[in-house]
Amino acid sequence: MPGMRMTKTIEVGGGNVAGGKEPLICTPLVAIDERSLLRELAAVCAKQPDLIEWRVDFFSGIADTVRVVALARALRENAGGVPIIFTRRSTREGGEPTGISEEQVLALYEAVCETSCVDFVDCEMSSDALHFQAVRQAAQRAGIQLIASFHDFQQTPSAADIVARFVAMERAGADIAKVAAMPRAIDDVLTLLAATLEGNRQIRLPIISMSMGPYGSLSRLFGWAFGSSVTFAVGEQASAPGQVPIEDLRAVLEILQRALAPR
Amino acid sequence: MPGMRMTKTIEVGGGNVAGGKEPLICTPLVAIDERSLLRELAAVCAKQPDLIEWRVDFFSGIADTVRVVALARALRENAGGVPIIFTRRSTREGGEPTGISEEQVLALYEAVCETSCVDFVDCEMSSDALHFQAVRQAAQRAGIQLIASFHDFQQTPSAADIVARFVAMERAGADIAKVAAMPRAIDDVLTLLAATLEGNRQIRLPIISMSMGPYGSLSRLFGWAFGSSVTFAVGEQASAPGQVPIEDLRAVLEILQRALAPR
Repeated sequence: MPGMRMTKTIEVGGGNVAGGKEPLICTPLVAIDERSLLRELAAVCAKQPDLIEWRVDFFSGIADTVRVVALARALRENAGGVPIIFTRRSTREGGEPTGISEEQVLALYEAVCETSCVDFVDCEMSSDALHFQAVRQAAQRAGIQLIASFHDFQQTPSAADIVARFVAMERAGADIAKVAAMPRAIDDVLTLLAATLEGNRQIRLPIISMSMGPYGSLSRLFGWAFGSSVTFAVGEQASAPGQVPIEDLRAVLEILQRALAPR
Repeated sequence: MPGMRMTKTIEVGGGNVAGGKEPLICTPLVAIDERSLLRELAAVCAKQPDLIEWRVDFFSGIADTVRVVALARALRENAGGVPIIFTRRSTREGGEPTGISEEQVLALYEAVCETSCVDFVDCEMSSDALHFQAVRQAAQRAGIQLIASFHDFQQTPSAADIVARFVAMERAGADIAKVAAMPRAIDDVLTLLAATLEGNRQIRLPIISMSMGPYGSLSRLFGWAFGSSVTFAVGEQASAPGQVPIEDLRAVLEILQRALAPR
């Protein structure tokens, strides 16, 4: 019923992120070097997102673990308490080419987890199973939550397939389950939303889901009403197709939440 | 593909209503007497809707055909060219009690059609078949378009059932097909949207569809992206549950259309 929560809460340090508001708005950071990343962070923080995702595959210094760890610390110091997601997106799932090996990626995740200066790490389900479990253990040791993710930039799987992926993420030990898919037709946006509803019934983890591209922007605005706990919005620059500016997202959310409130 | 129309156009007098913009915004008039209806019209017209629907079942003088016809003429004179829908909603489908018989309703529709001072009449598919066809003929003689409608305030039929209703409306000779249904759970909003997409494939008529109530407000904001040509918004007072203020609707449409535009 309206008035009820539409999404599961996400916690950090024993408290609900942003006091439990829904959906949480996450803004990506995609700058290529230290200076521009810290500038991007300041610009993004001024827009008061609920979460920040550092897309480290955009960072030109990704091959240098020392630089990455130092920059993760600098982000933490300058993020004003906004929880941070650390993400290396593979080119296979829409990320930037980095030239580093999966072994280096794992070492990077382990080093960043050790600093405890991020709150979440994102690891793709398409990773090697041992890699995934090693990331999981590194995160767990540091009290960091693991977001298991799946991205399909070509098409939208069937609802049953998407739900099966959410279930597999829970079984693999993730703390949050994320699926992003590209619609080929607008019907696919309904498929993604229906799978999000059903996924929330079948697993206990919070779900993050979105359709991508222009049609998919519908799900970035309304997907939380169907159970997506987080929506990604543009602070300075988009990290994936169809993200809308954070100001636009907030305007729509405000209207929608008024409309959904019980009268 | 984005950039393409999401809905079928609706024409009046050989031209697309509102220059073909989508969705068309229709604002209901629900005042109970002449003076308050004309006052409501003025307030509503100031908000520049694309269509106006006069819900004559709210009008206390409905039993007096002369008063209704005179008021229809006054609406036409004062509507500034905005096309008008003339609608008696039955109590069976969510309308106000009026105390007049179906024979009187038919006579009223015939009298109003003769004046040609409305552009559309709405007739429920649940009407007696002879009644429906008589309304259709009266409309046709006057060059007025017929909206066949179906409302379910209790639940949302299956998608197949909704599509079958759209098909039946086309077969019965309607010019526009309208279905409104109440969601019992938020899944039902997806059902209504999926049926709207499929209905548009199966019939050539423009479709108007909406989920009602708080959850249904989602479809009032973004149902056009799934093929609903018209959305109803509140000018002065709502005529059905879940309608959002026209200002809110416009704000969301502007953001959504920017997000859907090809880049």
